[in-house]
Amino acid sequence: MRRCYTVEDMRQWLADNNAYKFGKTKTVGFVPTMGYLHDGHMSLLEQSKQDNDLTVLSIFVNPLQFGPSEDFERYPRDEERDLRLAELCGVDAVFLPSVEVMYPHKPLTTVRVSAIADVLCGASRPGHFDGVATVVSKLLHIVSPDRAYFGMKDAQQVAVLTQMTADLNLDTAIVRCPTLREEDGLALSSRNVYLTPEERDQATVLYASLQTLQQSLKEQRLSVAQAEQLLAASLREAPLAIIEYAEVRTFPRFGQPSPHSCMQDIIQQGTTLLAALAVKFGTTRLIDNMVYAPDRE
Amino acid sequence: MRRCYTVEDMRQWLADNNAYKFGKTKTVGFVPTMGYLHDGHMSLLEQSKQDNDLTVLSIFVNPLQFGPSEDFERYPRDEERDLRLAELCGVDAVFLPSVEVMYPHKPLTTVRVSAIADVLCGASRPGHFDGVATVVSKLLHIVSPDRAYFGMKDAQQVAVLTQMTADLNLDTAIVRCPTLREEDGLALSSRNVYLTPEERDQATVLYASLQTLQQSLKEQRLSVAQAEQLLAASLREAPLAIIEYAEVRTFPRFGQPSPHSCMQDIIQQGTTLLAALAVKFGTTRLIDNMVYAPDRE
Repeated sequence: MRRCYTVEDMRQWLADNNAYKFGKTKTVGFVPTMGYLHDGHMSLLEQSKQDNDLTVLSIFVNPLQFGPSEDFERYPRDEERDLRLAELCGVDAVFLPSVEVMYPHKPLTTVRVSAIADVLCGASRPGHFDGVATVVSKLLHIVSPDRAYFGMKDAQQVAVLTQMTADLNLDTAIVRCPTLREEDGLALSSRNVYLTPEERDQATVLYASLQTLQQSLKEQRLSVAQAEQLLAASLREAPLAIIEYAEVRTFPRFGQPSPHSCMQDIIQQGTTLLAALAVKFGTTRLIDNMVYAPDRE
Repeated sequence: MRRCYTVEDMRQWLADNNAYKFGKTKTVGFVPTMGYLHDGHMSLLEQSKQDNDLTVLSIFVNPLQFGPSEDFERYPRDEERDLRLAELCGVDAVFLPSVEVMYPHKPLTTVRVSAIADVLCGASRPGHFDGVATVVSKLLHIVSPDRAYFGMKDAQQVAVLTQMTADLNLDTAIVRCPTLREEDGLALSSRNVYLTPEERDQATVLYASLQTLQQSLKEQRLSVAQAEQLLAASLREAPLAIIEYAEVRTFPRFGQPSPHSCMQDIIQQGTTLLAALAVKFGTTRLIDNMVYAPDRE
């Protein structure tokens, strides 16, 4: 497994493996991450290995997507463990740029996806999705993959990047992969390590709320507003949970459906809906979501 | 010469000619234009033919880079003439997308280059360079050229696009080509056809002012402020000229040099300066510029 630390190294390795520009014959799958790999990341890598000749992993904690009061500094890092896991998984190359490699000068260029990036996590974390869209656009230009893999835990990120690649005619397919969960339902996230034991116990409330909604939708007609109330009520059963949002949105546009419309009707008319949650436990912010797609009905 | 009207057509032609992704062996030079070709465009095409195996021209009047009160509707168009000229010049393929091909849905994604794009033409035409950066980013993703050619008449555009490709790690070289001029010095522009005979006579004042400054710089030390005064005074000799700006800037960052610093000193210390003009004649807006680079001294 090759470790590449600069843009030139990365491209040279790709070119040497017939996967960049002149003489490209191999397909490349790309899994961009912020490291501290868990089974969710591993499932993206496995999918990439199935779909492509070569799989490239990147590990870069991107300062651009953290707000000034957020956890950039303390974001968990364990490069050696990540590299061992990647090697075991059969990753072909890892791109490990420093902040100086990615931003050698103050960057003046921003890629912005309006509307989708302005709600939910975008509203709570101003500039977050600009940072995501900009760094992913850079990484896609550096690695030039045929496919890039993202987990649906970050559904809004998936939506922002799918819109970006479509709008800008980037020739990389954005592949959505299912959220991986602990046995008790907690969505895997590098940030789960921040949780105290008590918070960890109560953190199962996110997935439990989504399941409650899913069950209710099978039993009764629910308006969008009723669904959101049900989610909030369910979340409030965990005393430590501070709700940031609990909303139903269209997917992948993240539009706001009419609050009085019946969720089942909207879905039956062909619109995919997403219930999206962001909940804080102390200073730790957790997100989760569930998709209710027409073909599930 | 192949005419391509859709993104798929364009990429298929490139792939068929070993110039896109798998099996790429040929270099591609790209000249994006808004059509109504003049000798300035032709010089870009000639340069591209010298440097690359294949040359692609695009013709697209991009609504995104025109303000609501600007000349998008009346911008001069003559596709048949453009195609004849391109064929004569030996262009290999022309990309002629419609607005629907470039923007099939309301685009949500914007590429923004701050600072450089906010001054001079960017200040006079809010959103203009966002439109330019966004459409050029799309075109570069569609055509995937090794080199893209732009004329220095639009020096600020060159600076914005050079910054964008560097910041976003786009693997296309932005090649600057010199401004072409009429015999009397007027910079070639598709918009010159808007000028009345009287305006056309007086439009030579832009280049004359830049030459006056160039001559003065050989004869005497001039502060930045003095240089700008000299440009403005020289422009005012044309009674129909309405000055939008006449400024000295650093190139390619378009920073503002200290007004009291001596231009010759700044240049000798290794900073390239640019004198940039925008002048209206009636409703027609003309721009021109001259670069004063350290190695010219």
